[in-house]
Amino acid sequence: MDTQLETGEEVIARLMEVTATDMEAVNGQILERVRSHVAMVPEISSYLIEAGGKRLRPMLTLISARMFAHPNGNQINYAAAVEFMHNATLLHDDVVDESEMRRGQPAARKIWGNQASVLVGDFLLGQAFMMMVETGDLTALRTLSEAAAVIAEGEVFQLARAGKLDTSEKDYMEIITAKTATLFEAATRVGAMAGGATRDQQDAMALYGRELGLAFQIVDDVLDYGGVRGDMGKNTGDDLREGKMTLPIILALKEADGKERDFLASALGNGAADEQMLARVLDILQRYGGLDAAIARALDHALKAREALAPFAPSGLRDILEGITQYCVARVS
Amino acid sequence: MDTQLETGEEVIARLMEVTATDMEAVNGQILERVRSHVAMVPEISSYLIEAGGKRLRPMLTLISARMFAHPNGNQINYAAAVEFMHNATLLHDDVVDESEMRRGQPAARKIWGNQASVLVGDFLLGQAFMMMVETGDLTALRTLSEAAAVIAEGEVFQLARAGKLDTSEKDYMEIITAKTATLFEAATRVGAMAGGATRDQQDAMALYGRELGLAFQIVDDVLDYGGVRGDMGKNTGDDLREGKMTLPIILALKEADGKERDFLASALGNGAADEQMLARVLDILQRYGGLDAAIARALDHALKAREALAPFAPSGLRDILEGITQYCVARVS
Repeated sequence: MDTQLETGEEVIARLMEVTATDMEAVNGQILERVRSHVAMVPEISSYLIEAGGKRLRPMLTLISARMFAHPNGNQINYAAAVEFMHNATLLHDDVVDESEMRRGQPAARKIWGNQASVLVGDFLLGQAFMMMVETGDLTALRTLSEAAAVIAEGEVFQLARAGKLDTSEKDYMEIITAKTATLFEAATRVGAMAGGATRDQQDAMALYGRELGLAFQIVDDVLDYGGVRGDMGKNTGDDLREGKMTLPIILALKEADGKERDFLASALGNGAADEQMLARVLDILQRYGGLDAAIARALDHALKAREALAPFAPSGLRDILEGITQYCVARVS
Repeated sequence: MDTQLETGEEVIARLMEVTATDMEAVNGQILERVRSHVAMVPEISSYLIEAGGKRLRPMLTLISARMFAHPNGNQINYAAAVEFMHNATLLHDDVVDESEMRRGQPAARKIWGNQASVLVGDFLLGQAFMMMVETGDLTALRTLSEAAAVIAEGEVFQLARAGKLDTSEKDYMEIITAKTATLFEAATRVGAMAGGATRDQQDAMALYGRELGLAFQIVDDVLDYGGVRGDMGKNTGDDLREGKMTLPIILALKEADGKERDFLASALGNGAADEQMLARVLDILQRYGGLDAAIARALDHALKAREALAPFAPSGLRDILEGITQYCVARVS
């Protein structure tokens, strides 16, 4: 068996293929649960959920359930709940970050306003909990409700550290663990639960999810500076303008001289930072290898995610899970 | 036994007295659950939760449990969860309404910003679900998670109807049922569940909570226009400036002539509406008895709340529950 899937597209295509039937049920659940006579509720929800998202998280839940012998059907509700939690977070994040765009389209808040974005996010969170409750599995409920609190706490921490030059790598890892890896971890763990995994197997799948989530977020943070080559393109520099202390910046700050530090300080959180400022920031990041070093960390976490799968016998599904770790990092190069 | 408690203060004092021991445990839970090394989380939570709120909802949960023979202890977590849900809603509402003040103090968003208010609201919601999960009672979990979705949906509906002169009484009742009565109903229902109530008894307590919540919200909406006498004071007219279609306005619009309708239309949602405009709005509300008629509705719901208690034998606790219905409406006069 060829365990090396060639391209990111191929991995995602295979993932979509093996989760297709379950995903149809998940999509049905999603449509059913955003129904409301209040038109903005389905409008905003559908706009967001259908707008080009890869639905990676729910697919992770579904494939995690399929990895085990006896999926009990709960994975459908869990996957839909995970997608709702993710989209609730996106709606609130866009308000918090004052984002203009999301997935190449105007952010929902630009069309329906901040107010509706906050409230529809709350609605999706409530619906997510209702779907979990319906499965009757308290262990999965605990996993997902804890994730909701941890994600929010991590986002507050990120906000508190914005623009703070003394933000450490440890702080950064804590933030991305909370805001991103926690939901990936919950997605794979509850999937494994629905599949009938033992506690050890659940822990292995949860570790896979967490490490994958860390790799995913670090890569996202590098992409925000245009990837390893630091290509300036659309949306490049959003994190900089929002003052987000991401890994490339933190690593470069360690090496930068006083003048460069002062310049980075003036650019971070500067909503009006123009192309010239961004170019100079990229120059500093390149000079001290901030982008390359960050990618090396992402690779490290991707590798740990692969290693977490070691207890499972080789299979087509395991190949896909391994392929996702490669795809995740390959997005950047 | 004197079933008529004399004053609102007396009712609240008696309510606080009979729930004091449980409330201490609830306050302990609240403090425990807002703990975080991220300073803004406990800061914002404590600021809001300690800032003069009467904690009426958690006390309703506690007294509802005490109405029955065998409280199993879950009422502590339910009461804390209800208070967290309420405060999460307040944080998000203040962002949605761009409020300056809350309970006589600057709104949290004026001190910590909209961003932190959204995120800490999410954190409180996540913690509320965790506390419910810990009780292991799926029926209560269903009640409270459904309430979370219904509240958010009602708030979106309210937003959608803002400034719309064709908003009907039916629309208004749907909005306040969702945004206010649902949580009162959930608070009394889960309290009764923790107390060991039968299904019929739970339904009676839930009906009490719902009708009380309706009376409470109608009175709040009348108070926003200065009460039955239409006294202008601090915060008077907030609903008008936000374009909220509340009962006094809806009832007055039915009777108003074309010129008055045009004037009300120009004032509703006019953030800059000054005292002179407000005075003219109050004049129209008085002329057509909008405030009195709204109070009559509130009284009607308060009476229904009392009637819901009919299945229960007279007792000191029932007296307090009845007294709350009076207190609730008496606030206005």
